[in-house]
Amino acid sequence: MKTELNERIERIDKALDAYLPERDNPQTIIYTAMRYSLFAGGKRLRPILMLETAKMCGGDEKAVIPFACAMEMIHTYSLIHDDLPAMDNDNLRRGMPTSHIKFGEATAILAGDALLNKAFEIVSEAETDNAELALKAVSELAKSSGTEGMIGGQVIDMESEGKDISLDELRYLHLLKTGAIIRSSCRIGAILSGASEAEISAVDGFAANLGVAFQIQDDILDVEGSEEELGKPIGSDAEQDKNTYVKLVGLERSKELAAEYSAKAKAALEIFGERADFLLRLTDYLIDRKS
Amino acid sequence: MKTELNERIERIDKALDAYLPERDNPQTIIYTAMRYSLFAGGKRLRPILMLETAKMCGGDEKAVIPFACAMEMIHTYSLIHDDLPAMDNDNLRRGMPTSHIKFGEATAILAGDALLNKAFEIVSEAETDNAELALKAVSELAKSSGTEGMIGGQVIDMESEGKDISLDELRYLHLLKTGAIIRSSCRIGAILSGASEAEISAVDGFAANLGVAFQIQDDILDVEGSEEELGKPIGSDAEQDKNTYVKLVGLERSKELAAEYSAKAKAALEIFGERADFLLRLTDYLIDRKS
Repeated sequence: MKTELNERIERIDKALDAYLPERDNPQTIIYTAMRYSLFAGGKRLRPILMLETAKMCGGDEKAVIPFACAMEMIHTYSLIHDDLPAMDNDNLRRGMPTSHIKFGEATAILAGDALLNKAFEIVSEAETDNAELALKAVSELAKSSGTEGMIGGQVIDMESEGKDISLDELRYLHLLKTGAIIRSSCRIGAILSGASEAEISAVDGFAANLGVAFQIQDDILDVEGSEEELGKPIGSDAEQDKNTYVKLVGLERSKELAAEYSAKAKAALEIFGERADFLLRLTDYLIDRKS
Repeated sequence: MKTELNERIERIDKALDAYLPERDNPQTIIYTAMRYSLFAGGKRLRPILMLETAKMCGGDEKAVIPFACAMEMIHTYSLIHDDLPAMDNDNLRRGMPTSHIKFGEATAILAGDALLNKAFEIVSEAETDNAELALKAVSELAKSSGTEGMIGGQVIDMESEGKDISLDELRYLHLLKTGAIIRSSCRIGAILSGASEAEISAVDGFAANLGVAFQIQDDILDVEGSEEELGKPIGSDAEQDKNTYVKLVGLERSKELAAEYSAKAKAALEIFGERADFLLRLTDYLIDRKS
């Protein structure tokens, strides 16, 4: 699986590089800062989910690549802004200085803005022979990253800091903060491939459950992972008294839940038969991951 | 003119209100913050330019309204982020506390992000009977607000702080920072109205020159305006040693230049005959403005 993923990461990185080359102009620093965060070793999970969903639905990779790159840019911008002093105030990400440490806060704010903006540049400029589908996919992208999606989740996360929240509230927070763009990654892959309503709905069920399983596994790794493999200190959630599944239901129940959601995710793909093979294996891989 | 403008502002505000209503959900604070800045008394210049250009080109207002609102949201997000402590560190805008003073820095950052994102939500979800034209307009919107447009200009502005720059460099800075979205406002109005290439090019010439004239007039007002009418202290550009037309070429030459660019802007609209009436009068009004 690792080899298969690396092959895909390479393809995505190549496309990202083409969409965001270095520029030699008076505003060159913004390109340097955008590229610094974009090529900081991300796992490209969202683009991979989009491309593989498209493949499963019989779609054409060429039409999906711009959206896959846009999604990764949106994910990256959210990390840059999340790390800012006024937000999580993180100095390191994946063992490297965060954007505002490296380039200063003003450039980091603008680099985040610019990546969000660039995402919509790419998808609106992409060649398409079906402008209606492209617009629908742009709309999915925008909705899932907005106030009823990722940004909404960031707001709730911020608002609930230091407060005890219920399991339902935690679930809603993650549904928005991390779940929304995992879900739209898969949905966009299906939409651009001309999938039927039934197929889009199956894909949505897969992604919604995968998103929860992925988040629970994240919370578990903060307790059970190794610092070396994760590239960040273990136990930081507990130390910052973050609301996590482990805090709310304990480690054992969290593991059961991760397994349950992952099983539900896989079951949702049944209608695709053998074509679902890669996504099924990816789901197992993500839940067994150590980092 | 004032009455005509107010009538248009009212229509735009009504549409903005419909696109961004108050919400009663766990992330309600982000809607409050977005609305606070969006309804802080803006002149709605960009949406008015877009709507009037569309009217001049024989277009349908209904198709343009979503883009006009999106443009105002993008303008507003850029002001929120520009005011942040890491950027211009402004506490007041139009006599009211800036977003980070009112809501805290984290919420202000997210409110800016959310307005940029919402702009693309609106335009991608808008009903259209010509998806190709809509995509083309989305692309204009994205390009003009990105790294080769407004954000690029913000970066150069930041980088040139405290440095002496040439008139050419100042012109390039403004071409991007304020010029790009004034230009795309007019271009989008023309594009969505099915204007010919010659018409789009005339509109572009108008907007490019208007943008420069508008900027020069801004610099002049900082020297000659009244604090009461402007809602901000006079002489702040000189105090902060900002690079302005007045600093680089003096007050008299700045006035000549404003008149020259405004004349060029109006000349560009000749091919539209009487249909250009409103935009011609608006140009005069903007150059004679006291605030």
